[in-house]
Amino acid sequence: MELENLLERVKNGTLDIKEASSEIEKSMYEDFGYAKLDYNRKKRSGFDEVIFCMGKEDKYLVEIVGNLIARNHRVLGTRASQYQFNLLKDRYPLLKYDKISKIIKYDELDSPLSGNIVVCCAGTSDIPVAEEAAQTAEFFNSKVDRVYDIGVSGIHRVFSNLDRINRANCIICVAGMEGALSSVLGGLVSVPIISVPTSIGYGANFGGLAALLTMINSCANGISVVNIDNGYGAGYIATQINRLAIDKER
Amino acid sequence: MELENLLERVKNGTLDIKEASSEIEKSMYEDFGYAKLDYNRKKRSGFDEVIFCMGKEDKYLVEIVGNLIARNHRVLGTRASQYQFNLLKDRYPLLKYDKISKIIKYDELDSPLSGNIVVCCAGTSDIPVAEEAAQTAEFFNSKVDRVYDIGVSGIHRVFSNLDRINRANCIICVAGMEGALSSVLGGLVSVPIISVPTSIGYGANFGGLAALLTMINSCANGISVVNIDNGYGAGYIATQINRLAIDKER
Amino acid sequence: MELENLLERVKNGTLDIKEASSEIEKSMYEDFGYAKLDYNRKKRSGFDEVIFCMGKEDKYLVEIVGNLIARNHRVLGTRASQYQFNLLKDRYPLLKYDKISKIIKYDELDSPLSGNIVVCCAGTSDIPVAEEAAQTAEFFNSKVDRVYDIGVSGIHRVFSNLDRINRANCIICVAGMEGALSSVLGGLVSVPIISVPTSIGYGANFGGLAALLTMINSCANGISVVNIDNGYGAGYIATQINRLAIDKER
Amino acid sequence: MELENLLERVKNGTLDIKEASSEIEKSMYEDFGYAKLDYNRKKRSGFDEVIFCMGKEDKYLVEIVGNLIARNHRVLGTRASQYQFNLLKDRYPLLKYDKISKIIKYDELDSPLSGNIVVCCAGTSDIPVAEEAAQTAEFFNSKVDRVYDIGVSGIHRVFSNLDRINRANCIICVAGMEGALSSVLGGLVSVPIISVPTSIGYGANFGGLAALLTMINSCANGISVVNIDNGYGAGYIATQINRLAIDKER
Amino acid sequence: MELENLLERVKNGTLDIKEASSEIEKSMYEDFGYAKLDYNRKKRSGFDEVIFCMGKEDKYLVEIVGNLIARNHRVLGTRASQYQFNLLKDRYPLLKYDKISKIIKYDELDSPLSGNIVVCCAGTSDIPVAEEAAQTAEFFNSKVDRVYDIGVSGIHRVFSNLDRINRANCIICVAGMEGALSSVLGGLVSVPIISVPTSIGYGANFGGLAALLTMINSCANGISVVNIDNGYGAGYIATQINRLAIDKER
Amino acid sequence: MELENLLERVKNGTLDIKEASSEIEKSMYEDFGYAKLDYNRKKRSGFDEVIFCMGKEDKYLVEIVGNLIARNHRVLGTRASQYQFNLLKDRYPLLKYDKISKIIKYDELDSPLSGNIVVCCAGTSDIPVAEEAAQTAEFFNSKVDRVYDIGVSGIHRVFSNLDRINRANCIICVAGMEGALSSVLGGLVSVPIISVPTSIGYGANFGGLAALLTMINSCANGISVVNIDNGYGAGYIATQINRLAIDKER
Amino acid sequence: MELENLLERVKNGTLDIKEASSEIEKSMYEDFGYAKLDYNRKKRSGFDEVIFCMGKEDKYLVEIVGNLIARNHRVLGTRASQYQFNLLKDRYPLLKYDKISKIIKYDELDSPLSGNIVVCCAGTSDIPVAEEAAQTAEFFNSKVDRVYDIGVSGIHRVFSNLDRINRANCIICVAGMEGALSSVLGGLVSVPIISVPTSIGYGANFGGLAALLTMINSCANGISVVNIDNGYGAGYIATQINRLAIDKER
Amino acid sequence: MELENLLERVKNGTLDIKEASSEIEKSMYEDFGYAKLDYNRKKRSGFDEVIFCMGKEDKYLVEIVGNLIARNHRVLGTRASQYQFNLLKDRYPLLKYDKISKIIKYDELDSPLSGNIVVCCAGTSDIPVAEEAAQTAEFFNSKVDRVYDIGVSGIHRVFSNLDRINRANCIICVAGMEGALSSVLGGLVSVPIISVPTSIGYGANFGGLAALLTMINSCANGISVVNIDNGYGAGYIATQINRLAIDKER
Repeated sequence: MELENLLERVKNGTLDIKEASSEIEKSMYEDFGYAKLDYNRKKRSGFDEVIFCMGKEDKYLVEIVGNLIARNHRVLGTRASQYQFNLLKDRYPLLKYDKISKIIKYDELDSPLSGNIVVCCAGTSDIPVAEEAAQTAEFFNSKVDRVYDIGVSGIHRVFSNLDRINRANCIICVAGMEGALSSVLGGLVSVPIISVPTSIGYGANFGGLAALLTMINSCANGISVVNIDNGYGAGYIATQINRLAIDKER
Repeated sequence: MELENLLERVKNGTLDIKEASSEIEKSMYEDFGYAKLDYNRKKRSGFDEVIFCMGKEDKYLVEIVGNLIARNHRVLGTRASQYQFNLLKDRYPLLKYDKISKIIKYDELDSPLSGNIVVCCAGTSDIPVAEEAAQTAEFFNSKVDRVYDIGVSGIHRVFSNLDRINRANCIICVAGMEGALSSVLGGLVSVPIISVPTSIGYGANFGGLAALLTMINSCANGISVVNIDNGYGAGYIATQINRLAIDKER
Repeated sequence: MELENLLERVKNGTLDIKEASSEIEKSMYEDFGYAKLDYNRKKRSGFDEVIFCMGKEDKYLVEIVGNLIARNHRVLGTRASQYQFNLLKDRYPLLKYDKISKIIKYDELDSPLSGNIVVCCAGTSDIPVAEEAAQTAEFFNSKVDRVYDIGVSGIHRVFSNLDRINRANCIICVAGMEGALSSVLGGLVSVPIISVPTSIGYGANFGGLAALLTMINSCANGISVVNIDNGYGAGYIATQINRLAIDKER
Repeated sequence: MELENLLERVKNGTLDIKEASSEIEKSMYEDFGYAKLDYNRKKRSGFDEVIFCMGKEDKYLVEIVGNLIARNHRVLGTRASQYQFNLLKDRYPLLKYDKISKIIKYDELDSPLSGNIVVCCAGTSDIPVAEEAAQTAEFFNSKVDRVYDIGVSGIHRVFSNLDRINRANCIICVAGMEGALSSVLGGLVSVPIISVPTSIGYGANFGGLAALLTMINSCANGISVVNIDNGYGAGYIATQINRLAIDKER
Repeated sequence: MELENLLERVKNGTLDIKEASSEIEKSMYEDFGYAKLDYNRKKRSGFDEVIFCMGKEDKYLVEIVGNLIARNHRVLGTRASQYQFNLLKDRYPLLKYDKISKIIKYDELDSPLSGNIVVCCAGTSDIPVAEEAAQTAEFFNSKVDRVYDIGVSGIHRVFSNLDRINRANCIICVAGMEGALSSVLGGLVSVPIISVPTSIGYGANFGGLAALLTMINSCANGISVVNIDNGYGAGYIATQINRLAIDKER
Repeated sequence: MELENLLERVKNGTLDIKEASSEIEKSMYEDFGYAKLDYNRKKRSGFDEVIFCMGKEDKYLVEIVGNLIARNHRVLGTRASQYQFNLLKDRYPLLKYDKISKIIKYDELDSPLSGNIVVCCAGTSDIPVAEEAAQTAEFFNSKVDRVYDIGVSGIHRVFSNLDRINRANCIICVAGMEGALSSVLGGLVSVPIISVPTSIGYGANFGGLAALLTMINSCANGISVVNIDNGYGAGYIATQINRLAIDKER
Repeated sequence: MELENLLERVKNGTLDIKEASSEIEKSMYEDFGYAKLDYNRKKRSGFDEVIFCMGKEDKYLVEIVGNLIARNHRVLGTRASQYQFNLLKDRYPLLKYDKISKIIKYDELDSPLSGNIVVCCAGTSDIPVAEEAAQTAEFFNSKVDRVYDIGVSGIHRVFSNLDRINRANCIICVAGMEGALSSVLGGLVSVPIISVPTSIGYGANFGGLAALLTMINSCANGISVVNIDNGYGAGYIATQINRLAIDKER
Repeated sequence: MELENLLERVKNGTLDIKEASSEIEKSMYEDFGYAKLDYNRKKRSGFDEVIFCMGKEDKYLVEIVGNLIARNHRVLGTRASQYQFNLLKDRYPLLKYDKISKIIKYDELDSPLSGNIVVCCAGTSDIPVAEEAAQTAEFFNSKVDRVYDIGVSGIHRVFSNLDRINRANCIICVAGMEGALSSVLGGLVSVPIISVPTSIGYGANFGGLAALLTMINSCANGISVVNIDNGYGAGYIATQINRLAIDKER
């Protein structure tokens, strides 16, 4: 750890205490007043910083993306509107945008995808969230297998895809309405299922709360839950698990 | 209809108007002050009156049961405690009590059971509610087939019982926790499913609300829902449907 | 059952195991990646597949409708916007649209309507949901009788229509605000009532939750509930019951 | 108003300013540290102070009741347990207790009851709350007519009592479960209905919330609502209205 | 009562039974299919029918208003948008519209206003609801005194208007945010307070729920509550009470 | 107190009783019918009146601002839209507007800022609420130190700013999503933390309710909470505390 | 700060790096496995650690109290049952217990109380929470003035105690039911009000949620809120503010 | 897969079709009527079946445990009361019981524990849930490191244990009240965190809902959530992840 290194230099007198203190801080984030960019994150967590675009002021968004690009960081922006993409595209023409998942990407390096994450979703309307999960996992170099529209009202669609599903290191299960797909999968597989309730539905679904409660209360094992529509979060966790599975020497 | 008959007699002068008015009321219920027993119900709905015992004052419960027995009505009491049964047993020794379903019965006539209602439940803990449903349906002369402990976390248990389930005129699906069984059944059968959420579970199940929301939001067709733990209501509705199916000449 | 047939052919060697497996899957659904069309549904449930249009991506909606038409399936689309209808109309000019119920239909065959479902609603504002229920039931060949605007604040309107209501095999009760109509009907009829809470109202109706709770907690018997504004679901269930009543030989 | 009187005396010098200030306060309440008994209430509101017994410390309850008796005030205590009554009975043997309504009374003066308040309730289990309302109104000298067990599942019981109900100056409607009785009455009468939801029911009644929402969202006119199980509050308001109706010269 | 009259005619043979039945129904409402206009309401309740305009289909709204005008009924429409008013204005030029309260009126007869209702509101933003209440009461011939912007954060504004408030037969209290004004008034007056929570506020006011709960749980007496923003309902009830107070001979 | 002064003048006959009464009222507020401007507030609370602009009718807003300016009061308007600012700007060209905080100000006097309030926020998206808090405090003459974007997911940003934070008399902590920043700060400082949950987030944040509950349930000490997005309220309270800290002679 | 001191010693070689690390940790807390006692808290926050007794295992509670006593720390235990007190009393006979507030205290030093905190409560039933607040503040050496039973239903009780209330550096306002007292006080004073909703009430108070929402949404200024029944938290914050007011040299 | 094997035998005629069907079912579960024991689970999921004891009928519990023991299965029972343990102990004396975690175990094989799961909890009161998690993981052969009482109000306790925490393959974070510990850990580690909200707390924690919402809405990455108090579920998932990390050849 660098901190120990620093203390050593303090001890042997090659580093002044005040300088040491300042040095530590600079290596960890850059302060723009309205934002403190966390350059230390990758070291701490093994993941690049990601930008949640929804609701960001134009000015802030442009500057944050610009700073990452200027430092040769890769860029992943989630929940970006078409308007926001256009705004950024003018300045950084290499940015790409996927309308379904609302993801902005920059400088996707050609490191090979590895491992195996299966992203399932219950209905066609859940695909935007499923894609946010899948593309996030791919951004972080996970290989992804998509198994879409296998909701429990036609449960044979689950069974005829079970072999593919069972090859995963981690399963992401995206479902709206009553979200029962998680429980069914939970009874059929041996790896963790990250469940993502979606806001798809109407009436007493309360914007996804019904699906969230279904998943949280599941009688099946191996199911943990992230926020409603939080495809990004599921893609992140699935990657953490996928890395553990493929990377023995940690 | 009797009312027309009455009007006829008013018209041809064989019945005084005031008397007619009083006559109508008497034929419909008896007034005890604290309760108005609805003797007309069977004619209106085809079902005997049933007593919801939970929380009834001792004095009221004893009198109501006594009045039904005195008039040779059959008796079905739901949500009865052991204490309430003992209280009634002293006065009416022919009453029977089932501890699991908490049902009190009296004078069960030997009319044959007919039709076919399947009562499913997801887990062993859901059996008390399932039995309330099953025994209610039987009290109303429906034949009942019980398929218990087929929750979706071991979904092969559903499939190996599917033939039995598919022979029903109506299915009652009792499930707590996340209540996903309804959705799975909904995709596999062609008859109506009356879903009963139960309060079984803990934490974010909110006393059965989670299961209720799952069932109300089901992506599968043919599912309607009654109140949490309301086995009685489901047994009643299933009987209505069962009668329609077996009784052509209505 | 076809599966047994298949096993027979496997046994007598006329079918290869791998082929058998593939055969089963093909007969059950077609996989478009973003959707898996469930051609087996009609056999399983007796009902054609129906499209929930709300929120579907343009591209997906057009392809799904197109595939059904190409295979000579009848089409029922619910919750379709005027925009979606126009989109489809351009390609499939025989489609029809009802603005009140927001239903799209195609190729309505002239099979006769039969049985009797009564659709009641409490107020004029509940008619869109009532019509979704009524037209769904008609699409599935049920005869429907509409009794609208009979809310309990003018309860004589219920009584003067009671004879029509009592002729039903199944009643659909559509009501918003406090949804009390279900309980009143429940005390007056002998057949099942499928209750549909609507989101009509304001303030503490919480988008239909108040009406849903009223119906779920009804002191009257024979009432089961579907999701807020779910006219389609009610029409489906009522048809299941209506078919049981008219079709002795199942 | 006394305050003007006081200012007059200050002006003509017959009252010292400091004394005036102290005088005003004393006439309004007595301070016991843990409680400030509001002797001015009757003058302000026309009603004696009433004690909400539930959860009061023994010591406080005994002292408060004792002080009212010592000053020859009449006493009405609501939500009193048998234990609390026994505690008080030892010291003040003239106190009376009604087990159903859980009301404690003392020194009920023989002023004649007048006017007409009708207290309705939907089921036998709602009687405790109905009696709290009725006896509160009687304590405040209102004449009360009780019409119990007229829930909407047997709606003929409402109609055959409609004449009695229509003679009221004000109606109190007490109902649990789904609380639909209020809406039915609201469509049939011309005087205000004070609706009291009760906690009677189970499952998705949420301790009376379902009935409260039904009543607050009623499509009928003339309905206002008090807290769940608040019979006392309804008896109080009904008396206010009853007094307005019988007392022309205010 | 007319019904007795009818029975007399049936008895003495001057009226055929079938005709009698039909006669009764016609006198009570007119059936337009989508709506059943309740002409009997005024006789039953003493109030004209009122139209809740929000969300009514154009066609229905125009016809309903037209039918009332054609029968020389007075018209009160609440929650009408500017668009709806324009739509109606074209056909019925005598209609008037108040933008603040969103009320449409027609043919306001010059019967004198009588009695005294005080309408209070807590803040300037609550005025639209207060005006809906006030103008409803005036439409039903109640005299109204408006006391606006007296919220408890500047409580001297309550006290300096207390004399006016205390002259009321009934008080309407309109308040959003935390709705504390009701409790303060409740401790200061002797007549009933109809409380109207408003949706004014933000954050944890949950669209008026916070104010509703405050009012329902008030420690003060004499407070009953109507739905959030339901000025109309409060104006109606206040008029019922006002009439009782001014009209001895009922 | 002026009231004593007034009573003196009443006593010695230099003031008529009726005049005295009128005098008192005038000194306290001015009545515009739709609003009662509270000129006494500054004396009572030490703070100028502030205008909550959101949802105010144009006419009312213009008049209220105009009256304050006419009386040489300073003006602070919160939650003002660009439209509202333009409306006011035309009449009162000296008004200033901050787009981020949506604050309108007028005639900011050059009294020096004093004390020390630290305003923290968790993310860039919380800045609008943080600025409402900061600028409110500055309007009331508090010195403010802004420490933004120090959310707990990069907790080193908290620690490297801890010295600045610990110099505060009062800390305002603004956070959305799960609002955990308050608890972390609460364990590290010795002065009160006014916590402001924001509506930033999505899904199960329920418009800020999740953050509010986090803060209300904090295991750390010294944390009290204001309404969701209520930056103004936090700035006000922080100023009250700051004044206590800097002003010994109260 | 000690940390700098430590780094100095590391630099000049008088402290080994590993030892330094261990030293820092020991000075901050002691680890018992099941608990980590935070001896550094007083230095960080200026307050002793306080024990929340409710639900603590017997064994843990006894050991934690014992360790504090062994180190000559003062002890404050909140939410302690009579059973827990008896358990501790056997071992540590100097402990004292207050039944109303459920507070356990040990070794209360005779440092003088200073400053001025006013604790108000609305009703007699709120006193337990008010006492928890008052005694917590006194434990931390604040002078407390108790003003109890001044709920808004008898608002003159507020006014006649206003002078006492206005002398406070900070006000704690404890109220259940609808909790309106906070808003009334907020309009009358110039210092911060820490509001404590209590669970006192019934029905739609939802265990204190109604009062919490009232306080959070208050239209008055200067009000911040702590958890339901959290008297301890309010006493802590009020002490923080009281110290700022009396202690100029921080 | 065995199914293929079976089909082979069907094909080559060594197995009759009816027998094959029956064979499949028997190998999958045993049907006791009230329960269907899932002997296939271990093969499907890699985990033994676990018994959720809470609320199980005595008779059912005894039989289920007995059957597992009779088949030489290991037994893990969660949420067992002392009463249930005594009941079982009489029959199966080798069973062991842990009072803190309420876990019953039988025949714990001496297979070595491997991998590394860190179980953290925020406070001493969270230990029962933390132990349920830890002992579940150990039952499934995971090595567990316990880091307890590191709640964020004394955040240095997190930092001084960070090295241990960072050595985990998976972290379980157990926290009640506001549950902020998850977010803090989430910003500091690189492996998945399974968050368990507990019901510890009071007032507006709503039985653990507040903590659940905090965790679901966390601004930190890598956090997924299970049901309130669901230590078992977390131990299960953590073991799934731990196995992936240590077991390369899957």
